[in-house]
Amino acid sequence: MAPHPVTEFVSPSAWALVEDKFSPFAKETLAKLVNFVRTEIEPAESIYHAQIPTDPSKRWTTIIPILEELRSKARKLGLWNLFLSKAHYPEYGVPLTNLEYALMAEVLGRSGFLASTITNCAPPDTGNMEVLARYGNAEQKKKWLIPLLNGEIRSAFAMTEYGTASSDATNVATSMRVEGDQIVINGRKWWISGAPHVQCAVHLVVGKSDPTNKNRHIQQSIVLVPANTPGVKVVRPMHVMGFDDAPDGHAEIIYNNVRVPVSNLVGGWGRGFEILQGRLGPGRIHHCMRSIGLAGAALDLMIQRVTDPKRKTFGKQLFEHGTVVSNVARSRAELDGARLLVLSAAYQIDKVMAKGAMKDIGMAKFIVPTVALTVVDRAMQSYGAEGLSQDTRLAEWWSILRTLRIADGPDEVHIEQIGKEELKRAPALHRLTAEMKEREAKVAAQWKTAL
Amino acid sequence: MAPHPVTEFVSPSAWALVEDKFSPFAKETLAKLVNFVRTEIEPAESIYHAQIPTDPSKRWTTIIPILEELRSKARKLGLWNLFLSKAHYPEYGVPLTNLEYALMAEVLGRSGFLASTITNCAPPDTGNMEVLARYGNAEQKKKWLIPLLNGEIRSAFAMTEYGTASSDATNVATSMRVEGDQIVINGRKWWISGAPHVQCAVHLVVGKSDPTNKNRHIQQSIVLVPANTPGVKVVRPMHVMGFDDAPDGHAEIIYNNVRVPVSNLVGGWGRGFEILQGRLGPGRIHHCMRSIGLAGAALDLMIQRVTDPKRKTFGKQLFEHGTVVSNVARSRAELDGARLLVLSAAYQIDKVMAKGAMKDIGMAKFIVPTVALTVVDRAMQSYGAEGLSQDTRLAEWWSILRTLRIADGPDEVHIEQIGKEELKRAPALHRLTAEMKEREAKVAAQWKTAL
Amino acid sequence: MAPHPVTEFVSPSAWALVEDKFSPFAKETLAKLVNFVRTEIEPAESIYHAQIPTDPSKRWTTIIPILEELRSKARKLGLWNLFLSKAHYPEYGVPLTNLEYALMAEVLGRSGFLASTITNCAPPDTGNMEVLARYGNAEQKKKWLIPLLNGEIRSAFAMTEYGTASSDATNVATSMRVEGDQIVINGRKWWISGAPHVQCAVHLVVGKSDPTNKNRHIQQSIVLVPANTPGVKVVRPMHVMGFDDAPDGHAEIIYNNVRVPVSNLVGGWGRGFEILQGRLGPGRIHHCMRSIGLAGAALDLMIQRVTDPKRKTFGKQLFEHGTVVSNVARSRAELDGARLLVLSAAYQIDKVMAKGAMKDIGMAKFIVPTVALTVVDRAMQSYGAEGLSQDTRLAEWWSILRTLRIADGPDEVHIEQIGKEELKRAPALHRLTAEMKEREAKVAAQWKTAL
Amino acid sequence: MAPHPVTEFVSPSAWALVEDKFSPFAKETLAKLVNFVRTEIEPAESIYHAQIPTDPSKRWTTIIPILEELRSKARKLGLWNLFLSKAHYPEYGVPLTNLEYALMAEVLGRSGFLASTITNCAPPDTGNMEVLARYGNAEQKKKWLIPLLNGEIRSAFAMTEYGTASSDATNVATSMRVEGDQIVINGRKWWISGAPHVQCAVHLVVGKSDPTNKNRHIQQSIVLVPANTPGVKVVRPMHVMGFDDAPDGHAEIIYNNVRVPVSNLVGGWGRGFEILQGRLGPGRIHHCMRSIGLAGAALDLMIQRVTDPKRKTFGKQLFEHGTVVSNVARSRAELDGARLLVLSAAYQIDKVMAKGAMKDIGMAKFIVPTVALTVVDRAMQSYGAEGLSQDTRLAEWWSILRTLRIADGPDEVHIEQIGKEELKRAPALHRLTAEMKEREAKVAAQWKTAL
Repeated sequence: MAPHPVTEFVSPSAWALVEDKFSPFAKETLAKLVNFVRTEIEPAESIYHAQIPTDPSKRWTTIIPILEELRSKARKLGLWNLFLSKAHYPEYGVPLTNLEYALMAEVLGRSGFLASTITNCAPPDTGNMEVLARYGNAEQKKKWLIPLLNGEIRSAFAMTEYGTASSDATNVATSMRVEGDQIVINGRKWWISGAPHVQCAVHLVVGKSDPTNKNRHIQQSIVLVPANTPGVKVVRPMHVMGFDDAPDGHAEIIYNNVRVPVSNLVGGWGRGFEILQGRLGPGRIHHCMRSIGLAGAALDLMIQRVTDPKRKTFGKQLFEHGTVVSNVARSRAELDGARLLVLSAAYQIDKVMAKGAMKDIGMAKFIVPTVALTVVDRAMQSYGAEGLSQDTRLAEWWSILRTLRIADGPDEVHIEQIGKEELKRAPALHRLTAEMKEREAKVAAQWKTAL
Repeated sequence: MAPHPVTEFVSPSAWALVEDKFSPFAKETLAKLVNFVRTEIEPAESIYHAQIPTDPSKRWTTIIPILEELRSKARKLGLWNLFLSKAHYPEYGVPLTNLEYALMAEVLGRSGFLASTITNCAPPDTGNMEVLARYGNAEQKKKWLIPLLNGEIRSAFAMTEYGTASSDATNVATSMRVEGDQIVINGRKWWISGAPHVQCAVHLVVGKSDPTNKNRHIQQSIVLVPANTPGVKVVRPMHVMGFDDAPDGHAEIIYNNVRVPVSNLVGGWGRGFEILQGRLGPGRIHHCMRSIGLAGAALDLMIQRVTDPKRKTFGKQLFEHGTVVSNVARSRAELDGARLLVLSAAYQIDKVMAKGAMKDIGMAKFIVPTVALTVVDRAMQSYGAEGLSQDTRLAEWWSILRTLRIADGPDEVHIEQIGKEELKRAPALHRLTAEMKEREAKVAAQWKTAL
Repeated sequence: MAPHPVTEFVSPSAWALVEDKFSPFAKETLAKLVNFVRTEIEPAESIYHAQIPTDPSKRWTTIIPILEELRSKARKLGLWNLFLSKAHYPEYGVPLTNLEYALMAEVLGRSGFLASTITNCAPPDTGNMEVLARYGNAEQKKKWLIPLLNGEIRSAFAMTEYGTASSDATNVATSMRVEGDQIVINGRKWWISGAPHVQCAVHLVVGKSDPTNKNRHIQQSIVLVPANTPGVKVVRPMHVMGFDDAPDGHAEIIYNNVRVPVSNLVGGWGRGFEILQGRLGPGRIHHCMRSIGLAGAALDLMIQRVTDPKRKTFGKQLFEHGTVVSNVARSRAELDGARLLVLSAAYQIDKVMAKGAMKDIGMAKFIVPTVALTVVDRAMQSYGAEGLSQDTRLAEWWSILRTLRIADGPDEVHIEQIGKEELKRAPALHRLTAEMKEREAKVAAQWKTAL
Repeated sequence: MAPHPVTEFVSPSAWALVEDKFSPFAKETLAKLVNFVRTEIEPAESIYHAQIPTDPSKRWTTIIPILEELRSKARKLGLWNLFLSKAHYPEYGVPLTNLEYALMAEVLGRSGFLASTITNCAPPDTGNMEVLARYGNAEQKKKWLIPLLNGEIRSAFAMTEYGTASSDATNVATSMRVEGDQIVINGRKWWISGAPHVQCAVHLVVGKSDPTNKNRHIQQSIVLVPANTPGVKVVRPMHVMGFDDAPDGHAEIIYNNVRVPVSNLVGGWGRGFEILQGRLGPGRIHHCMRSIGLAGAALDLMIQRVTDPKRKTFGKQLFEHGTVVSNVARSRAELDGARLLVLSAAYQIDKVMAKGAMKDIGMAKFIVPTVALTVVDRAMQSYGAEGLSQDTRLAEWWSILRTLRIADGPDEVHIEQIGKEELKRAPALHRLTAEMKEREAKVAAQWKTAL
């Protein structure tokens, strides 16, 4: 029997380990996805980037034609909204588990966010659809969720704030107060991904609605703000390592006396923190798997470069020099290990929900971006100056991965959290050691052995 | 339902990922093993070490009484020869897959080699039993394999040679020539593990039987040499980082005109290299999993130390200082990732045999010892000088793990091999890129986009 | 006595170690430079960057007014051409040693290349002035060197070629042939720094003038090509990690049947490789010291960020979290160690010329960029997403440093070279060991001690 | 002029940098020392180790004859007590600065502690002599200091305690109370280096003499206890990574109602902490320089091994494999950088005393052992199993270096301290930034540039 086509991208041993947890539908969809990526998306990547205008005045106002065509193709093929698990969202979801989607996210990730966008699986829309599906009321779902699911509009999640340490969500300062049947919003946000996009129709804005509440975790609410509401001003696109990531981008936004009806509240007053927390688990897995996909693509480029006979220096091919072979081996092993860590976290979510899998998700969150950055950095190095330039995609990939050491909480926060979580095992370990010492004393007495 | 007891030692997410690949027998055996380690082996460890004489003249001649008792208990419980897979050795094996035994090896590994010895699962006997089961003739099996399976004798595998770079097996210099119906052996070996043991009854000696053969891979043969054959001289025990590893140890041995009957040849003339290669795959998995067990035990010790209220310095508990929490988090994540890498390699062996799994085995081989050494080193550091001393087992564990970066081939060899293996993907990648470029050109033409 | 003002930037212990090797002139110039950087350059940095047009059509055609003013001030203050050592270039140079200038380069480096440009100490002009001063004939000096020394024009060094592995200079493919009294040049270069600058008046082009010569090191020549010669086409600016580094930049250039008089040859036919080699030594020291300056500035930013009381998360200041304090300590120590390594290499150049200092220069070349990148990366991380954006200079600094792991030969090449250099000590070591063994044998005999 | 012989061991560029700070006497002594090490100590090393009895009952009671002879030779040559700086100890010292002795310590360090012992420059005697020279009264000097200076006796410094976190000196629990004209001492110490030595005549015991004093830093005192005082019991030698370090070793000691005259108090009641602190600065420099010497010797061994033609594997010499050359290059560069860091700290001590050099000393303390361990580990790896065994000195060297990550305070403590020290620069940096911003605003206004 021919091996499943996903093994072109993913190590056969990883696939073997999880294969029997994939439904026939998932296997078939995965195969279709691999084929779609190979035959449609990869050949379109350079064209997509060439179609993004370089003129600053048009970068954010242009719909990229090849993207629209591919989105339409993907939808027809059923390669659409794959992230939305039917088990969690029966009304809208696709019958895929987190584990099954995880491998798909790796395949999607090989082109940065392009393939994810084509299949309507790109953040922040993914998390926003989950929030609306879980917490939205009927009207909100009709107005925003359905068009998002259909890929007719885009959305933004307005969380991070200018001048505050936003990795601690309780620091959110944007004010939300009720005046009559309206909510009035004032604040300054930045790094709001997708907001500069020409099709971005709605912002899910996180604000402080109850600043004096003693419980810091129910001070926040989330409100839907149509992008064209008066007072919403996209100030500028933020750059990441020199890239503006058009046509999606990351905006600085000022909300200046923005007024929306009270019915735009999502889920209820004071549920902002709760919604935030729930939004993060699977999203982190997606980021991790996309990162592994990206790094895997970078390793494939590296392998091609170091075996390119035109690249001889000092009478040797590149791979015959110094640490190149060693770096290839390490990259392979580090990626294969990282993938398994994420897959096992994804499977944990399927078994015990994101909350029960928090430790596994957290470990993946701080391990994977660093592994992927290292692999892409080695690939850049193997391409020489070209690897840092606009002539390969490596530099942009590095910049995408670098943000993941900060987005959704910097490494330091996750490492500290996992460390403390692990230290909670201490009492049980102390108890087990005490029990063991008791037994040991008996055995020693019986053997008349002095310890 | 209560979680399987193995999750005391192994992360629940790793267990979840492989659980459905474990037979009811394997699950039950694993549970029994966990219980036996907790209740019998852990309380016996210190006593075992106390029973090893410190007097040099007795260190190698003493049978350790508590060990014998525990071996007898283990055998009665069916916790015996678990490494020998029935699928591969139907006549003698236990119905366990490589994957199933891999987790058992982790549990066994938590006490260095002690638990492995107690369950008759310790090298070099394990590899020797495999060799005899596969290549031995009826008489050899009766005389050596059966007593080994019964734990009545021990054995040695005499491969590494003094003064030659033995990681390349074709360098073996020990001469083997036939005189009449005898084989005459001359050579100087060292690092022959288990040879100093008082019960070691037989050596499997690797030598050069056909030095002028053009094919360097059929110049070697393996011959059974009873330990008490005239001319066999155990010169001295080798030390590892100051430890002599009594009562097992690693011997320097001189074979001086040693004569054994021709019938002591294993498998046939010139098959030495072939047998060697086959011996290594699963054995590397066992080493890796034991290493993870050892490092896991070290991490548990570290957690206990840094939460010990008596260890306050400068007004803080140890875990509140600097990088301790971060090191705990990293250790957990690195071990969890490493374990999955080995488990996936073990499962590959079950699916496609050791030969097909060589890349996965090789990656585990060079990744795991370094991860485990790092974890044990952090644990030593958390114990201060005590962590380097005879009062914890950490220093000895470190020395065991350090040898694994050299034994069965140094890291460098494996990294180079895996790197070259990975580079073999180059032609296929170049071809895929060429195909992609062709499609890209068509799409670009269709969109009239210049690239 | 007040400490020298350079100790604001440089560790007092490093300064103490070299202070007595600084002439009174050097000490005074250094003090003046520190003051100029503090009072004139630092306050001008943001303004300089704001004065660079964002409109792509103007980015490369605009003279930045504040830069010109500062260059004029620097020249008046005698902070000009400090890189050009009088000892090596008596006619044009400044009485500073390589060691003395090295510390100045660190001070200059704190603003990327800005301060170096202001003081006419920026590459590629520096190396080009050295080449012209050493190899140029009277007319070449008059026409190009003097205006460069006066800061009236800029220049480019056209070495790296499209599609060839240019870290090996013998791979240069651009053809140079003589037709009558003209040299005809054809080739495609890229990464030609400074070429896009509006004031760039001349290119020093490296080409292959004698491709069939058996000695691969005399096949190359260097020719002066006025930037406005017909056939010279600046195709596009290359980007580095998303940055185009306007207004200086790095160009792709096509030389299409470019004709210059034979008198534009520099130094003689076939001396290209020799000139190249000589150009690199001190230039690498400058790069290294600027890198340390840049990383030092990044560390200063990091210290300010992690002690900023507005940046509290989870009830703590940033520096109270996890590994922040440890990263500050490591950054300090790593930078201090790296600086000493470069200073000692610079002093070696003063003592035994660049050729004799090649090993020291090579070690600095591969150690420093990685150290500096690590420090800047930690600083970026401490600033969160802001650290990757256009709102700090950290991302651009990282990109500058990243190129240094490739420019003038990738790390791998230097590491291999130094390793082989170090291995040349082997014969002497083997001999010393043999002598020692001989003595040892005598002593052992005398003590009647068996070894 | 021939280069100074020290450049056989130390990079010529490091020597060049400090040479003019060496007095003629220091240069001559250094040359004499290099010669003595080469011609007398290196050929004696193996013989010395062979003369240490393996019989446990004699390991601690034997005077090693070759050692005594070499000590006597060294003394005659004036290579004696070189650590004791005349500037600080005019009465007893040698006219050498800390910088000058630092390089000598590197040369001495190449044989572990052997050369230091031969030249009466080994801890703990060195620190103890400093304490007695500075704080001892006339009688104490006559009775203990003079014989120590003459090398007639050895001494111990009894600080670290069993069961307490001793890196915080205020945790010392050993009680000291006055009864009449006697001091009564009770406590349990361990890791008391040198105490097991047959010639150890006196312990400097640190204890708590004033436990209720509100100032935790004057609760401790130091008392001289003759080794043969009733109640002093050397319980056992502690092992480090399996080594007992005989004939010097590290003892566990019980002080059980030990009584000494009140006149044995050193320096005055409550001055224990103060004395402790003063004892540490230069001692750390010595440890660091010896470590660099040791690692340098290991690198020399590695170079010899990887160029040994007998060590071919897979058709190549060892140095042609994978990362070997790269590891040689990195080791050289890392050692050279580390040396300069320590030399600059040593010079700081000469200029501003140990207290003013604390940051430099601290950085050396946490950087050097890790660098040296890495180099020795690479050397071990290049020797294969032999590198871990008793047949090279590498394993013992690794164990010596490993303790230095713990002794005199673990890495973590020093890193934290240096980090906090560095963060003290924050207020000045914030102020400089504010000043710069003020200037910037003026310049921006003048240029009418919006920021």
